[in-house]
Amino acid sequence: MLPTVREARQDDWPQIWPIIRNVITQQETIPYDPGMSEPDARRTWLLPAPARVVVAGDQVLGTANMYANRGGPGNHVASGTLMVAEEARGKGVGRALTTDMIDWARRSGFAAVQFNAVADTNTAAIHLYESLGFVTLGTAPRAFRHPVEGLVGLRIMWLDL
Amino acid sequence: MLPTVREARQDDWPQIWPIIRNVITQQETIPYDPGMSEPDARRTWLLPAPARVVVAGDQVLGTANMYANRGGPGNHVASGTLMVAEEARGKGVGRALTTDMIDWARRSGFAAVQFNAVADTNTAAIHLYESLGFVTLGTAPRAFRHPVEGLVGLRIMWLDL
Repeated sequence: MLPTVREARQDDWPQIWPIIRNVITQQETIPYDPGMSEPDARRTWLLPAPARVVVAGDQVLGTANMYANRGGPGNHVASGTLMVAEEARGKGVGRALTTDMIDWARRSGFAAVQFNAVADTNTAAIHLYESLGFVTLGTAPRAFRHPVEGLVGLRIMWLDL
Repeated sequence: MLPTVREARQDDWPQIWPIIRNVITQQETIPYDPGMSEPDARRTWLLPAPARVVVAGDQVLGTANMYANRGGPGNHVASGTLMVAEEARGKGVGRALTTDMIDWARRSGFAAVQFNAVADTNTAAIHLYESLGFVTLGTAPRAFRHPVEGLVGLRIMWLDL
């Protein structure tokens, strides 16, 4: 059974921050500044409405935020970012978060979801997104410095709703 | 002769703002919120270093800002946005701004420049970028609501440095 996803509260932050800190310092999946301070991370992640922030699990096993990818004449396409705690990977947490994001985008009236920067080496995420119908629009070549794999591509992925 | 490009000063803002206001309210090229207030536009456009903001012309005919497209392991790719005053189009202002941006990205050590959202209908920009060596990595279909053309694609364009 997939973990439950619910909207994050301010008091979830102490459980969210270790997940983000671990993901950004490992630098393997998401192009965020690994030196980001906790206050900056909190401001960056806990976006105010109409953006939305969620957590998965009773104990927080993962988190996602979601928002319009662009403004004005581009605000009918959603985007978002999700992170799963290292110890909880492979258990459907990412799937629960992505499914929830798609449901939110659809009921909010978005026409599509665009992921702007999926590391080519993040095959678990790519397979998950493809299993939910996402396609790759293109790949920015060598746009991500993986600590082990070196320069790898960043995919732009897309789901029509 | 192409107009001169120089770094913007705070006191250029009164000449920059009418260009931005016109571009975003026309909603034909750039997916920004057309209702953006002047203070929000100023904060959004006049980014602090290490980002850079420039103007073209003695009278300001155009403006650009430029920055790392992503953080951490993605911060070796630059991005930017440029806007040209309606009355100054077709006179090389966009070319001067783009050439300046490429020069800045190269001397700052970036490996590439990525434009994330070039409207498919903005053929002047696409031809300009292609003439400077940019290629289209992919197109987000129907991701831009053009006021006349309806739903059009947003190209992701790329230049290796």
